[in-house]
Amino acid sequence: MSATEVPAVARPQPAALEAAHGALCDLLGADRVRTGADELAQHGRDESFHPAALPDIVVWPRSIDEAAAIVGVAAAHRVPIVPFGAGTSLEGHVAALAGGLSIDMRELNAIGRPSIEDLDVVVQAGVTRRALDARLLPEGVFFSVDPGADATVGGMIATGASGTTTVRYGAMRENVIAITFVDARGDVVRTHSRARKSSAGYDLTRLMIGSEGTLGLICEATLRLHPTPEAIAAAQCTFPNVAAAVQCAVMVSQHAIPVARIELADELTIESINRHNQTGFTVAPTLFLEFHGGSTAEVETQARETAVLAGECGGSDFAWASDEAQRRRLWHARHGAMEAARAMRPGSGALTTDVCVPISALADCISATQADIAQHGLMASIVGHVGDGNFHVVVLVDPHDRAEVAQGEAFHARLVRRALEREGTCTGEHGVGYGKARFLVEEHGRPAVEMMRAIKRALDPDGIFNPGKIVAGP
Amino acid sequence: MSATEVPAVARPQPAALEAAHGALCDLLGADRVRTGADELAQHGRDESFHPAALPDIVVWPRSIDEAAAIVGVAAAHRVPIVPFGAGTSLEGHVAALAGGLSIDMRELNAIGRPSIEDLDVVVQAGVTRRALDARLLPEGVFFSVDPGADATVGGMIATGASGTTTVRYGAMRENVIAITFVDARGDVVRTHSRARKSSAGYDLTRLMIGSEGTLGLICEATLRLHPTPEAIAAAQCTFPNVAAAVQCAVMVSQHAIPVARIELADELTIESINRHNQTGFTVAPTLFLEFHGGSTAEVETQARETAVLAGECGGSDFAWASDEAQRRRLWHARHGAMEAARAMRPGSGALTTDVCVPISALADCISATQADIAQHGLMASIVGHVGDGNFHVVVLVDPHDRAEVAQGEAFHARLVRRALEREGTCTGEHGVGYGKARFLVEEHGRPAVEMMRAIKRALDPDGIFNPGKIVAGP
Repeated sequence: MSATEVPAVARPQPAALEAAHGALCDLLGADRVRTGADELAQHGRDESFHPAALPDIVVWPRSIDEAAAIVGVAAAHRVPIVPFGAGTSLEGHVAALAGGLSIDMRELNAIGRPSIEDLDVVVQAGVTRRALDARLLPEGVFFSVDPGADATVGGMIATGASGTTTVRYGAMRENVIAITFVDARGDVVRTHSRARKSSAGYDLTRLMIGSEGTLGLICEATLRLHPTPEAIAAAQCTFPNVAAAVQCAVMVSQHAIPVARIELADELTIESINRHNQTGFTVAPTLFLEFHGGSTAEVETQARETAVLAGECGGSDFAWASDEAQRRRLWHARHGAMEAARAMRPGSGALTTDVCVPISALADCISATQADIAQHGLMASIVGHVGDGNFHVVVLVDPHDRAEVAQGEAFHARLVRRALEREGTCTGEHGVGYGKARFLVEEHGRPAVEMMRAIKRALDPDGIFNPGKIVAGP
Repeated sequence: MSATEVPAVARPQPAALEAAHGALCDLLGADRVRTGADELAQHGRDESFHPAALPDIVVWPRSIDEAAAIVGVAAAHRVPIVPFGAGTSLEGHVAALAGGLSIDMRELNAIGRPSIEDLDVVVQAGVTRRALDARLLPEGVFFSVDPGADATVGGMIATGASGTTTVRYGAMRENVIAITFVDARGDVVRTHSRARKSSAGYDLTRLMIGSEGTLGLICEATLRLHPTPEAIAAAQCTFPNVAAAVQCAVMVSQHAIPVARIELADELTIESINRHNQTGFTVAPTLFLEFHGGSTAEVETQARETAVLAGECGGSDFAWASDEAQRRRLWHARHGAMEAARAMRPGSGALTTDVCVPISALADCISATQADIAQHGLMASIVGHVGDGNFHVVVLVDPHDRAEVAQGEAFHARLVRRALEREGTCTGEHGVGYGKARFLVEEHGRPAVEMMRAIKRALDPDGIFNPGKIVAGP
């Protein structure tokens, strides 16, 4: 199976679907149970290149109790459930492969009062990252996980998101204290107390993080917060080649410099940023860096030490941006890299993927990928969370040209195998969805995938939660 | 059921045990399959006050293949398996409640070559913390999790250990990259690649961390390392009461001072340390602190800022120990607190337990616990990993006095409920074993515990892995 085809997953019986529709209308009122073509189309597609697959019904719960009752209806009639957040996933996570019920979580968007003493906050699943940022800003605290997209917290939990700040603050895995979700019986489960740590039983919190809606409907979470740094500075530096830039990141890590972001952009990315934003960055492999500290002196020390290491690795033009406007411009450019890349070839689609390898293998893995891109005449740019060994490739393909799509897919498979050969993973942060399900056995071995399947069967015996995802591969 | 009684768990048929014994002798040679009284006694008891329960057979695998074959034999004959590390657990984890096979992992003690670029190392389960420290020291890196005891890495994974440095570097959860274990079918499972992060499927690594031998036999792990800090300083400071000391810890956290350790000791602990070590610490609630940084200037800044905050909270006698000998003496005293506490009442046993609450509730929870201790005339000291909201109580009881043991047990139940009422957990780091299984439903609610049981049944359908632990409560 290629990931560009929609896999066949058994659909519910029409009678079951009709019965569920009736029960949902009884529960929510008919006007809140939608089956219009536009609404179905909006809920069957994410931002990936994977084909859409539409649900039959869309509902928007307004409370956790309502969410539990909705799951209860779906379970009673064995109708598939696909949770929907902001639709920014990249491996077809929200595609309703077996039709059924899309549960749009965006009306569950309450944010509790943040605790400044405990550095935590309770939020509902439909809260978006930017809405949370805005709420926390005046409190002097922030939620650190930044995947780029304005995803919902529920979606970020579901995919085990991470991003540019993970090198210092960790991924969702390290920043979610507890999760409240609805299980396959319609029961509301809370995974953990509010304590910072616990050894009281199996770690259901981490089991739910990265489960992509296949084990339950995530409704609420207690998130860990960090104090807003007193001082922030950004910097950039160009390198003669990717290996030199990666070597700089390795040395920063070995010297325990607590860099907050360390991002690699390759030549094509810089070129596309320059064209798209009318900037004049030197077209060369570039590291974008950010430093957080308790004082200006502290971030200056971090930046100075990093500049020395960059110089030792052949880096040049180490440039500071300590005032906020400069800093915003710099990160605006980096965060717009994917959009800029797409603009290099108007009308094209973007095959966006990610892999992650041990840092010692990163330079080699990226160089081999660049050679592959050149050899096959692809237009593809690379950006990387280089402190974690994680990088993204955006391949521009004409979505209507089957041969070109197939060529992109073949490249994707080679990229994943290149990462696996280097003790890496098929995805550092995008998740499996249905786009990467076929690589899971290759990565983990059959016993580990069988263990995942046993967990899935035990917790969702009728297979109602997001069928066709994660453990659905061969 | 009180935790001071051994719960009834079905034992294997004598014929099955005999058949397994024969098969193990065939596999390992009769001299490596031990049933001597001393060996059985050594393997049925940990360092807790919970009664021992002896296995029928003890074996020592020397390779992962051998470990897999041993599990295969036990599975074929449905004989229980209890993994054994250093025996330093505190909730009866290693007690063979249903008899069967104790698998002592201490001969699986190889340490791979640490990767300084990737900051990771592969170690076998039987490696002890101190052996690992000694191996890593000359490499300029260290493994950060320090539970105090010289536990094995396998045991630390099994209990989800943490300790004094968790406030800065995280618990086992944050410092284990991958685990290799043997599942109930005797298959060798690897949970994760060597990549620093991944979203490729369910998080089997974190599921195994804290699973206490109930889901599989942990054989090997890839651990995350940190560069040894260039500069380290220690400090101590006394406070008028526990609330003031906790307030200081809260402020250190809010000011994002990256303190490496921040440990609370109550008056009785200080008094026992003074008596045991002939030291002259002021008898008052005390914080012991450690600071790690890239330079002496950096740790001095951290310590100076902390001293100011301590002063604002009513702390006094903020004393430095920047040279190594002084620092070692200070931490030696702190790490020996439990031994010192026991020495206050010679011949007594120690009922050692831990709970963890949100930091905002910590001062109140500790004060209420001190009042409880006074009211019931107990001799009990408190030490706490106060930056995590986690504290330990050591109650000295005469193990032969049933009334006194029952009084200790009643105190323990009140302590747990006090933590749960404050949105805390029944154990921050000791784990569940059979000592705390009865509190699991109270803490998590029935749906969450039913989910844990479903996972247990799915992965260990015959219940051979450490029966009677974690999910075995009412």
